[in-house]
Amino acid sequence: MSIDRLEFAVALAEKAGELGLDYFHKLDTLTITQKGHQDLVSEADRNVETLIRTELAKSYPDDGILGEEHGMEEGSSGYTWVTDPIDGTANFVAGIPQWCVIISCVHQGQVIVGVIHDPVSKETFKAAAGHGAFLNGKPIRASDSESLSHGSVGVGFNGRTAVTDAVNVVGALVSKGGVFFRNASGGLMLAYAASGRLIGYVESHMNAWDCLAGMLITKEAGGEVLEQDINQSLYNGARVVVGAPGVFADLKEIAESSFAPFEAA
Amino acid sequence: MSIDRLEFAVALAEKAGELGLDYFHKLDTLTITQKGHQDLVSEADRNVETLIRTELAKSYPDDGILGEEHGMEEGSSGYTWVTDPIDGTANFVAGIPQWCVIISCVHQGQVIVGVIHDPVSKETFKAAAGHGAFLNGKPIRASDSESLSHGSVGVGFNGRTAVTDAVNVVGALVSKGGVFFRNASGGLMLAYAASGRLIGYVESHMNAWDCLAGMLITKEAGGEVLEQDINQSLYNGARVVVGAPGVFADLKEIAESSFAPFEAA
Repeated sequence: MSIDRLEFAVALAEKAGELGLDYFHKLDTLTITQKGHQDLVSEADRNVETLIRTELAKSYPDDGILGEEHGMEEGSSGYTWVTDPIDGTANFVAGIPQWCVIISCVHQGQVIVGVIHDPVSKETFKAAAGHGAFLNGKPIRASDSESLSHGSVGVGFNGRTAVTDAVNVVGALVSKGGVFFRNASGGLMLAYAASGRLIGYVESHMNAWDCLAGMLITKEAGGEVLEQDINQSLYNGARVVVGAPGVFADLKEIAESSFAPFEAA
Repeated sequence: MSIDRLEFAVALAEKAGELGLDYFHKLDTLTITQKGHQDLVSEADRNVETLIRTELAKSYPDDGILGEEHGMEEGSSGYTWVTDPIDGTANFVAGIPQWCVIISCVHQGQVIVGVIHDPVSKETFKAAAGHGAFLNGKPIRASDSESLSHGSVGVGFNGRTAVTDAVNVVGALVSKGGVFFRNASGGLMLAYAASGRLIGYVESHMNAWDCLAGMLITKEAGGEVLEQDINQSLYNGARVVVGAPGVFADLKEIAESSFAPFEAA
């Protein structure tokens, strides 16, 4: 079942990515105000999610759907799709070609499918639980780095948690000889951690639509992932730490020492 | 004269980008060790620079050339080309599709031509002194942001200066309501600052091949740029601060309070 849903999600993410890319190019050709940009981006976000919801409802009418834009629609099958139609919205608004479409699927408290698609560079990262992780069809592996000084760590920064969280992580990393990376798409950075391009990713709080796909892909690629109670994080989000097995303990320690306690909404 | 050299540099950067992209895709298809990766990337760096040098020597045999890989070759015409064949090498090695080819030209202590080409997203940023700044042929403008809390600031991090420099900048930015961005290609981040995608860029020290093109493009796009003695920075590099006119004073202050004194080599 999960492989069917995985291939469906890949095709859907790529179709959604094309629609997102149409909007992205439209932003580039229009000379509009910041407000106009923001409106068009909000329209893009909503319409890409609507496309995803419509296609899912056609093929899996009994599944639930949780999306960043339109909230939770409960299902009866026990499967819940979770999607961020455009992750990296600030980049998208600004014209920075680093954003992605994220689709995942949860069943019985487990993430069973995760897809992260970058429409600009034409990269699709995917995994189904127990079936490995792939980039454009080729198997990927998390990094074999054994030291924070070998490789870069993605750092998330959001408006929901203490502003010092990210600053503390950057400081802790650098003091241990590490290097920080932040291209402002948590989805892409998790995909990079899964594929060994980064040695890990740390963020004080992510929503389910931003992190579940990347966490599964990382796990299937041999990386380590801070456990979450998925039924909780669907509604409240959670702290995210993923990384190469050789640096995961260090990353967990950095997260613990850097992040202020987070009160779920 | 500068327009001829500009159009030449654009065509050359795009040609060099194709060669770089061939190597980038080759890295992706080979399963090789970290060492093997590094060797292939070093080969890519060298060979892309050799291509650039060879073409420049054919068309402008009397111009000087300074490149990251092969150093300074003095000329007699008074023009000196400055190039980083692959900026964002750490990304290139890791497979992160965020790197660029940079070509600039200096005449009588002034940067007269700057080109930054991103082969993956097919974006070419260019400027000639006094002739405006363009992205894929369309005019670009620096951001009209008037506050650090409206927009993101690129932050450079390098192995040549105090590791606390970047940490201090991140802390100072965030404490003023700002957001930091670091995709590990200084060239791309400067291009993003020039085109208003970022509201600025700050780094404690950059080499001439990394920063001259982006500084000119930003200036021609209406942004502000911390002045350098170009004849000095050709050899020693310099501190780089560029930004939207509305936030430039704040960025300069952040740089001054954040960076330890840098001793030129």
